[in-house]
Amino acid sequence: MPDNDPWGDVELGNIEEKMEEFGIDPIEEIADRMPDHRYIRRGIVFGHRGMDEYLDVLQDGGEVAAITGIMPSGEAHMGHKVVVDQMKMFQDMGAQITLTAADIESYNTREISLEEARKLVIEEYLKNYVALGIDLDKTDFYFQSKAGNNHLARAAMFGRYLTQNEMEATYGSANPGKMSSAQVQYADILRPQFPEKGGKKPTVVPVGIDQDPHIRLTREVARKHRDHDFRKPASTYNRFMRGLTGGKMSSSDPKSYIALNDSIEDAKSKIDQAKTGGKDSLEEHREKGADVEEDMVFELLAFHLIKDDQELERIRQEYSSGEMLSGELKQIAKDKIEGFLREHQRKRGGAAPKVEQYIEENFEFDL
Amino acid sequence: MPDNDPWGDVELGNIEEKMEEFGIDPIEEIADRMPDHRYIRRGIVFGHRGMDEYLDVLQDGGEVAAITGIMPSGEAHMGHKVVVDQMKMFQDMGAQITLTAADIESYNTREISLEEARKLVIEEYLKNYVALGIDLDKTDFYFQSKAGNNHLARAAMFGRYLTQNEMEATYGSANPGKMSSAQVQYADILRPQFPEKGGKKPTVVPVGIDQDPHIRLTREVARKHRDHDFRKPASTYNRFMRGLTGGKMSSSDPKSYIALNDSIEDAKSKIDQAKTGGKDSLEEHREKGADVEEDMVFELLAFHLIKDDQELERIRQEYSSGEMLSGELKQIAKDKIEGFLREHQRKRGGAAPKVEQYIEENFEFDL
Repeated sequence: MPDNDPWGDVELGNIEEKMEEFGIDPIEEIADRMPDHRYIRRGIVFGHRGMDEYLDVLQDGGEVAAITGIMPSGEAHMGHKVVVDQMKMFQDMGAQITLTAADIESYNTREISLEEARKLVIEEYLKNYVALGIDLDKTDFYFQSKAGNNHLARAAMFGRYLTQNEMEATYGSANPGKMSSAQVQYADILRPQFPEKGGKKPTVVPVGIDQDPHIRLTREVARKHRDHDFRKPASTYNRFMRGLTGGKMSSSDPKSYIALNDSIEDAKSKIDQAKTGGKDSLEEHREKGADVEEDMVFELLAFHLIKDDQELERIRQEYSSGEMLSGELKQIAKDKIEGFLREHQRKRGGAAPKVEQYIEENFEFDL
Repeated sequence: MPDNDPWGDVELGNIEEKMEEFGIDPIEEIADRMPDHRYIRRGIVFGHRGMDEYLDVLQDGGEVAAITGIMPSGEAHMGHKVVVDQMKMFQDMGAQITLTAADIESYNTREISLEEARKLVIEEYLKNYVALGIDLDKTDFYFQSKAGNNHLARAAMFGRYLTQNEMEATYGSANPGKMSSAQVQYADILRPQFPEKGGKKPTVVPVGIDQDPHIRLTREVARKHRDHDFRKPASTYNRFMRGLTGGKMSSSDPKSYIALNDSIEDAKSKIDQAKTGGKDSLEEHREKGADVEEDMVFELLAFHLIKDDQELERIRQEYSSGEMLSGELKQIAKDKIEGFLREHQRKRGGAAPKVEQYIEENFEFDL
């Protein structure tokens, strides 16, 4: 059985065990060499693999890269923002940014047509990502289905360095659709190191731990490859945002997330319906306080809506002491989301025509 | 266990059983609609699948195609000539010709570098194929590693239409290197039907029966595909030339074949050492005659060196009656191979600079 299934539901179990098993180091070990970012301060990014070498090269003025993918399936939401914000952080650190639209993966594993995928990528993801600060002019953005002859040929030839056993142990099967798109993904991750992209360089992939199988097999391909001198990719690991209703944030359950395209009204309504850590009665709440760890509204504040640590800490104390009620916490979140979405919608309005022009100028969709 | 393993040794067993099992029809059924070619008259091409429809479209003036591949591994020899001659036959019938250099396959399954593969393709195969009559200016020739973005993207997306069970039942494993190159091969076979090549059309692949697994799975992909309207490829099946020393013709045993680059001297020496169907003593031979079926020199004459059926029949009768001795048969073959190779070498001399210029003008090897 696979350790994790990047294509299915995830039950992570004990994160520390996984870190031990897969050689993921605590982020604390390199925190003082990283930017002062709330994700790192708050343990939202909790681990890494291979970042020491990455930071060494960066410190010596060398080229480094960061890559992430867009899986065109469902709406872009606040969960995706965790990765986009990290990409911005790496871009600000000086990394070359690569952004892959995984339309071969969605075609092979979700039966989404290239045309549907393209629409989702542009309307749901790209316009929002640009509004969140990704600068396409400084980004190597591409669709897997248009990744180029050499990229796709290399993906096919990565098969030489992989075994059926490895695939089955990692993914639970050697299904041809999954295998093909996995190999394209390894090429995506190694793309910043292709000769035509400047060659060998440290590359980081910010992921959730469910995506680690792809990272581990990409490292295998990088290690074994005979014709390219690749560095094994580094990675950072972020906690998953849970769904607003508790449980997993799921694209099949729109109440579980605030989408980046949600109206302010819908977003507020989702916050109103969110699972909180408040107690059943006012008396009990005042006496025992809220269970902050189980409060999905607090999680939203901690991940995205409150940048200032002292402000967040004040809210945590007031809420966990019982001084603040769930309704009051929700009101804070609704005010904050209104501010965030209003600003985001304004930026997306500006981004939309730019994205459309960028796509028009850079891609010919003849597949 | 796989029925046949296109990458390994082949033990075919009873051909008629295979034909029954895999729905291969006897060539006799369509022989009167095909050109009057010795391969068909002599049963060297013994079967087909789907050629009725192919011939119908051709008869109605529609576009048809034929495709074959070059596996860059070892020397080009008289065994390869069986397929090249068929491609010429289809070209003369009016088919568009596609010729694939399977360098991704040789990379993945034989660990041959792209550079080695390229050298083999050009020096061993392409120069000889042009000398044998393939007109590159009327041929869609390409290397798999340079097949183009859309070709390679489609190959990766064919994974959606295949299952691990199918792969294992057909090939004996779902090894990622084999799977990737198999999918590229399905794209090769369907390439004449890509929109940029004029779209849906009957396409024939002349093969040995060991390659039928690829044909069957390509037909599956063609049938199931959601975004392209493909015709299922047709195929013709040729008998294998056996090795000169008896047993299988094998690129690892140069005495088992006459290479297209062999000197006349070497070719004659190989004929001298070939396994014959002659009897051990002169007396026995004169009395019982030769076993023509087990004579590798006669096979060489029948496949390639004697175009005239009556001449071949005369030799068969004289040899099987004991009137002709093995040494005499070998002398005929040596005279014929000298004539063939002398002419072939002259043509190859003319082809060589043209091939080099063609490659220079059409390919950039940056992988």
